[in-house]
Amino acid sequence: MHLSLVQLAKPVLHGYFRSSCSWRVRIAFALKGVEFDQVPVNLIKDGGQQLTEQYKTLNPMQQVPAVEIDGITLSQSLAVIQYIDETRPGPRLLPADPKKRAQVRMISDLIASGIQPLQNLYVIQKMGAEKMQWAQHFIDRGFQGWRVSSTSQSSRYVTLSHLSPPALEPILKETSGTYCVDDEISMADICLVPQVYNAERFKVDLEKYPTIKRLNQTLREIEAFRVSHPSCQPDTPEELRG
Amino acid sequence: MHLSLVQLAKPVLHGYFRSSCSWRVRIAFALKGVEFDQVPVNLIKDGGQQLTEQYKTLNPMQQVPAVEIDGITLSQSLAVIQYIDETRPGPRLLPADPKKRAQVRMISDLIASGIQPLQNLYVIQKMGAEKMQWAQHFIDRGFQGWRVSSTSQSSRYVTLSHLSPPALEPILKETSGTYCVDDEISMADICLVPQVYNAERFKVDLEKYPTIKRLNQTLREIEAFRVSHPSCQPDTPEELRG
Repeated sequence: MHLSLVQLAKPVLHGYFRSSCSWRVRIAFALKGVEFDQVPVNLIKDGGQQLTEQYKTLNPMQQVPAVEIDGITLSQSLAVIQYIDETRPGPRLLPADPKKRAQVRMISDLIASGIQPLQNLYVIQKMGAEKMQWAQHFIDRGFQGWRVSSTSQSSRYVTLSHLSPPALEPILKETSGTYCVDDEISMADICLVPQVYNAERFKVDLEKYPTIKRLNQTLREIEAFRVSHPSCQPDTPEELRG
Repeated sequence: MHLSLVQLAKPVLHGYFRSSCSWRVRIAFALKGVEFDQVPVNLIKDGGQQLTEQYKTLNPMQQVPAVEIDGITLSQSLAVIQYIDETRPGPRLLPADPKKRAQVRMISDLIASGIQPLQNLYVIQKMGAEKMQWAQHFIDRGFQGWRVSSTSQSSRYVTLSHLSPPALEPILKETSGTYCVDDEISMADICLVPQVYNAERFKVDLEKYPTIKRLNQTLREIEAFRVSHPSCQPDTPEELRG
């Protein structure tokens, strides 16, 4: 087997310390024991450095994370994580059993498609003064589904709060062991921890979600989740370091 | 190898004729030649039949599609599609090469996480009178990224239109052959066609996206995409049949 120079080069992650999608990729590299370089892209400074011409050339989507790996540039964190899993040795990030794999992907997609896009920076910036309320609403809806009673003051949030599809807590109650799916760390755990971090930033009450809370507490102790945490990245501002 | 009764039973798709995520699953079944039963869930009637107690028991997420297959119930269309691909014979829905697989997942996730969630029924219902504008904005942003100049009259759409991350058209320009990635139909194509159908419903001008338009035209001629079309499902209302 030939290894080209490009495959021997370290992957480069263009990310942002606080982006939950960037954090997912950092966890995956850490779990696999893959060394990588980080190029910080500041989503706030100068109106968003991801909009500069240089970054546009690299990533036509101007979205973090973008990963240069094996001679290609990939975006979309779940695509990157599964590529890392399929091409690198180390612990599996998806189980071998197809049904368990499907459960891992269902939980990952629920977070990546059903919750995160509705509370990300770009969308909540559109919401102006309502942004905290909007983010809380969509995180609660994703965590608990129809059982959430909205505490919002605004009628449009209250009125529609019963129309709430995905529900992470009841699913995890069924699938989890020590981790999201049984007792093996997987892509689902990689998605869960950054989503809970976002929930905390938006002051969502985690006491309502005992399974999510328990899993998050267990996972946060693990080395790969600690070293990749937003509080200790190269671009973490001094005042947020912990 | 033992096949249990549950594996021999036909899968059951709980879906809605016009839900793009339900359509994705119908295309996957059709491409694989898998027979399945459909149980329609009306997202509009009676305030949304997916909110009934019966459906809640089946799918704690109250979101279509939910698929009963091989004794388990799965939601999240990409998880379902990959489960079908990994457990059923017939044409591959993801390429064998890891880099190509990553491109297919990147395009699929861009649509499933970066575009569809921001223009789905639940979110646009929150937008009231602005719903057409909101949906167009997020579809244009997803198709073209930063090159789109918003035609919106509302300042919050114009002001932020430069902050536009994903970009399907430039990616497909690079990856496509006859189909989204080279010359093999994949999960990326399964995601593309229903997203273009949504774009048309929200009166997005497709002339701006020549690659998307070309691929969609080619794919729409294919049997699996035709038989699964929203215009000819068991729950399609008479006036929308075509």
